[in-house]
Amino acid sequence: MLKLGVIGTNWISKMFVDAAEATQAYTLTSVYSRREASGREFSESAAIYTDLEAFFTSGIDVVYIASPNSLHFQQVAQAIEHDVQVIVEKSAFSNPKEFEKIYSILREHPTVHLFEAARHIHQDNFKAIEAQVADMDVISGATFVYEKYSSRFDAYLAGEEPNVLTRTFSAGALTDLGVYPIYAIVKLFGLPEDVYYFATKLANGADGRGTAILRYADFDITAQFGKMANSYQRSEILGRKDTILIDNIAELGDVTYVDADGKSVEISTTAPENPMMAEAQVFADIINDPDAHTDEYEELFMLSQRVNMVLTQLRQSAGIEFPADHA
Amino acid sequence: MLKLGVIGTNWISKMFVDAAEATQAYTLTSVYSRREASGREFSESAAIYTDLEAFFTSGIDVVYIASPNSLHFQQVAQAIEHDVQVIVEKSAFSNPKEFEKIYSILREHPTVHLFEAARHIHQDNFKAIEAQVADMDVISGATFVYEKYSSRFDAYLAGEEPNVLTRTFSAGALTDLGVYPIYAIVKLFGLPEDVYYFATKLANGADGRGTAILRYADFDITAQFGKMANSYQRSEILGRKDTILIDNIAELGDVTYVDADGKSVEISTTAPENPMMAEAQVFADIINDPDAHTDEYEELFMLSQRVNMVLTQLRQSAGIEFPADHA
Repeated sequence: MLKLGVIGTNWISKMFVDAAEATQAYTLTSVYSRREASGREFSESAAIYTDLEAFFTSGIDVVYIASPNSLHFQQVAQAIEHDVQVIVEKSAFSNPKEFEKIYSILREHPTVHLFEAARHIHQDNFKAIEAQVADMDVISGATFVYEKYSSRFDAYLAGEEPNVLTRTFSAGALTDLGVYPIYAIVKLFGLPEDVYYFATKLANGADGRGTAILRYADFDITAQFGKMANSYQRSEILGRKDTILIDNIAELGDVTYVDADGKSVEISTTAPENPMMAEAQVFADIINDPDAHTDEYEELFMLSQRVNMVLTQLRQSAGIEFPADHA
Repeated sequence: MLKLGVIGTNWISKMFVDAAEATQAYTLTSVYSRREASGREFSESAAIYTDLEAFFTSGIDVVYIASPNSLHFQQVAQAIEHDVQVIVEKSAFSNPKEFEKIYSILREHPTVHLFEAARHIHQDNFKAIEAQVADMDVISGATFVYEKYSSRFDAYLAGEEPNVLTRTFSAGALTDLGVYPIYAIVKLFGLPEDVYYFATKLANGADGRGTAILRYADFDITAQFGKMANSYQRSEILGRKDTILIDNIAELGDVTYVDADGKSVEISTTAPENPMMAEAQVFADIINDPDAHTDEYEELFMLSQRVNMVLTQLRQSAGIEFPADHA
């Protein structure tokens, strides 16, 4: 049983702990929170730490980090230094410079694994998409959409600076929501040859929504995402005459294949109630038997690095700088 | 009753003649076709001409031109020289140079009107979209999609060079299908500040599909169109929390407004059986009483010129040249 520590006490940490415990591979033992009360509210039984050093030396095997993006780098580095396995929410790091530094630290702690919690790519319905794509004769293009009005945008309009819409926290539409479609695209199609990001910037310089174009040798892919409007579009992968339709690239509730004759077949199965269970299981399997999963881990790690590169290139193409870029 | 001549004997000419006659403002009198037999097949009662000069001096008041795009310029010029009113299928001209020359000729024939047959923007359901857009507090972005696999792409794959996928005819996905979303966008939102076109080019250099980005001061708009794959996406205009959904930006069968609370209201009415009737009526009204419609005509003419500019800028951004650009 892996002793699990958690940084961040919001809804996504709660969901991950539920998923982790449901796999029966983890047990929550430690919670780090800036405020003791928030930690206690999060868990009645775990030990609560307001000091990060004490948290990392509390005997945990693995930490799940869901703090604001800009804090990931320092917290992940500290975890690795303590030989604690790391699961960090996406986007993992602000830029390739941070990723490189983490890589160097990992080299000195060869037993530690670093996982980016891209939950959707581990789900059965994502694997159904991968199998269908592999089975299609031609890919002509694709559109991935993840755009939903956020209550945090109400806060922005009211004059506040919510974390998820502030460059100080390495946040914005691309790194918070765009990371879902970008992860899916890079997992399915590899590194693009060229990328462009058309961002609608807020007064504070963060991106509220945007459209990214990822160019491949034979086709282009569009990703549309944002927090300041409601899109009802599906995601879609275009073959020659056939098409894959995906209701939501993050939630993956319904995936349908429409063949060349226009006949629809659902290729998805009922999505698990907790969408983080699949990734929690994958990470536990690798941690518990690393030698049997060398290739799988390597692939995930490389994917994480590629996504980090693509996100940064997109951001640069839109002229969006994070303070972390100049750290 | 306007005496109508037609150039081009394909399905779209047939549809226009049906629409024109249904308005009871036109009567078909002359058909130009390279082959007499095609002309006779098109109409049993009209006079058939295989010589363009004879066609234009046959006493017609107005000509509807649905020849390949690259032939429009010469045929329109000739029509104006004969003081024949002109309705030309979209895309009207290959580039702004052609448009300018036509404008000069029009100045010498002040009674002649030039109409581009952008049928969708004249429909009631398009006006419903315009009214809804005008009523929305904020526009955050939009996506317009018109992408359908064409049997002509089968021909291309079989080694042929179909007109609609050949630069020699100033054709391709943008000028043949993209013109629908681009027309809608420029009519609704005016001239963009900046445009980008990501085209998937065929071996012959024509665009088989593509994604265009039109940037405005406060938002970006995406247009997706093509002839080499099947998209099932709707078109969509994003407000703040509210959204307009359009089943098909060319056909405009169903337009729905989803308000900030997620409540849907259909704002479209049953589309007319013949989608070209609305434009045929508008053009006849202007021709029959020009003084009462000066502003309306001016607006349509300016819109046509703007669309011509935007299409050309998009094409240039993708490095797609037409032979007509060097004429």
